[in-house]
Amino acid sequence: MQNPVGIISMQFVRPFTREHFALFARIKSLGFDFVEMLVPEPEDDFDPAEARAALADNGLDVVLAARVNLQRSIASADPSARKGGLDYLAYCVEVADRIGARIIGGPLYGEPLVFAGRAPSPHGEDERKAREERTVEGLSQAAPRARDAGKVLALEPLNRFETDIVSTTRQAVHVVDAVADAGLGIVLDTFHMNMEERSMPDAIRLAGHRLVHFQANENHRGFPGTGHIDWPPIMRALGDISYEGPVSLEPFRRDDDRVGLPIAHWRPPHEDETEKLKAGLAFVRSCLALAEVNQ
Amino acid sequence: MQNPVGIISMQFVRPFTREHFALFARIKSLGFDFVEMLVPEPEDDFDPAEARAALADNGLDVVLAARVNLQRSIASADPSARKGGLDYLAYCVEVADRIGARIIGGPLYGEPLVFAGRAPSPHGEDERKAREERTVEGLSQAAPRARDAGKVLALEPLNRFETDIVSTTRQAVHVVDAVADAGLGIVLDTFHMNMEERSMPDAIRLAGHRLVHFQANENHRGFPGTGHIDWPPIMRALGDISYEGPVSLEPFRRDDDRVGLPIAHWRPPHEDETEKLKAGLAFVRSCLALAEVNQ
Repeated sequence: MQNPVGIISMQFVRPFTREHFALFARIKSLGFDFVEMLVPEPEDDFDPAEARAALADNGLDVVLAARVNLQRSIASADPSARKGGLDYLAYCVEVADRIGARIIGGPLYGEPLVFAGRAPSPHGEDERKAREERTVEGLSQAAPRARDAGKVLALEPLNRFETDIVSTTRQAVHVVDAVADAGLGIVLDTFHMNMEERSMPDAIRLAGHRLVHFQANENHRGFPGTGHIDWPPIMRALGDISYEGPVSLEPFRRDDDRVGLPIAHWRPPHEDETEKLKAGLAFVRSCLALAEVNQ
Repeated sequence: MQNPVGIISMQFVRPFTREHFALFARIKSLGFDFVEMLVPEPEDDFDPAEARAALADNGLDVVLAARVNLQRSIASADPSARKGGLDYLAYCVEVADRIGARIIGGPLYGEPLVFAGRAPSPHGEDERKAREERTVEGLSQAAPRARDAGKVLALEPLNRFETDIVSTTRQAVHVVDAVADAGLGIVLDTFHMNMEERSMPDAIRLAGHRLVHFQANENHRGFPGTGHIDWPPIMRALGDISYEGPVSLEPFRRDDDRVGLPIAHWRPPHEDETEKLKAGLAFVRSCLALAEVNQ
């Protein structure tokens, strides 16, 4: 398997502005095929068309990660937040078009728990179901629009500390099948899967053709190959479903609070970690290649 | 290995009061050797001496779990909270004495992150270190007192969403060795280890003689044997360090918000799960027994 392998820009800096375009050359020289970037905010000093040119200059593709929140939530009971959620997904499609991305991944529904900048609070089961149903309704409107623009939204299951709506692949499949539009697929992240799935390979096979993006993260979010995730069967499961899409790494290291807080990473790195990152990339590429070997 | 195997009382109800003593007979009939109980609050309708008699009537031992918080925190910058933390640990020792428990486990320092009922907030690295140092100071006072009473405090590493002070076994070893008192040991929980350790068996061997309590929880906190945790090598690692202490199960299922919130479990069970619980217990006992087989 020769899937494109990329890295999230937050590995290096956040927010990513035009002054950071020079990082594209570094990302390319590290050996990556694409960059996974947070959808920029309109007020950021970041012009998607200009970024597209800078990415092309460095031979890099791009995948987008949507940044939803409580005011941008198709799952919300508040109609204005639901409208905010739909408008934001439309904006993401527009940015994807300008920057040259096909995939926009993330939780999409904007109802995070502990990282919403507030204390976690429980919801009754009825309310949780209502939020899931509104998510299906919202994505039923957003997915066709994404598809018409040649894009695909990728719904990401997050671990229990980050959401209560879609934590497992099964829940994501339920939502995606209810929407049933080629403009909506699934992105799986092994960091979350490690906490929530019975079996990561089985979960990948369950996602099947719905899988449009994959994030290969170690159990402790460090460099791939430094934890206990059993990568070969995971890559073979990707092979089983003929997954040819992107594989991104997010071994992000805290550099400041804007990076540390949303990923719950509390200690900054104390040294240059370039060689570890390169080794992690080589490890992932080799596991993908070996997944095809059937002796 | 024939370690005593127990279950947390929160599996069944919280708060646990005298009206729930009848659950001890059920716990015994399920096949457990001990109950892991939250340290009762003084205002709870729960008399430790009375509970001791009820436990004895049912042939059950008991292990305690301390409930620290921001006002009971030996790690706090606030002297009154630090005093509250020390007073609380002294209270735990007193309750342990009255209920007949030897082990009091938990994070002990009372500086939880997302489950402190507030939004997560980042701390600078200097502040994190200062909190760790104050934890060492506080435990240096609390551990001798526990030891004098014939008790042992067990420091528990929690995952990154729940603490930033002690998340790994290495960090716990650092604290415990700095205190260097037989009144302080380590409790490891595979749910947290699955997120934070490079290798769970290696972490157990690193804890070594310091390990005084062990919590065998599946990666998704369901019944042991229903997830992807590789139990046989974990139990063999416990054998490597000649661990003869208790092994508790905490596959707690949400029954109400007081249970669901602190464990981030958002969906209630929809059926009687007694048989699954029994099978989980049998699975853990068999893995422990098989860990001694050296063919």
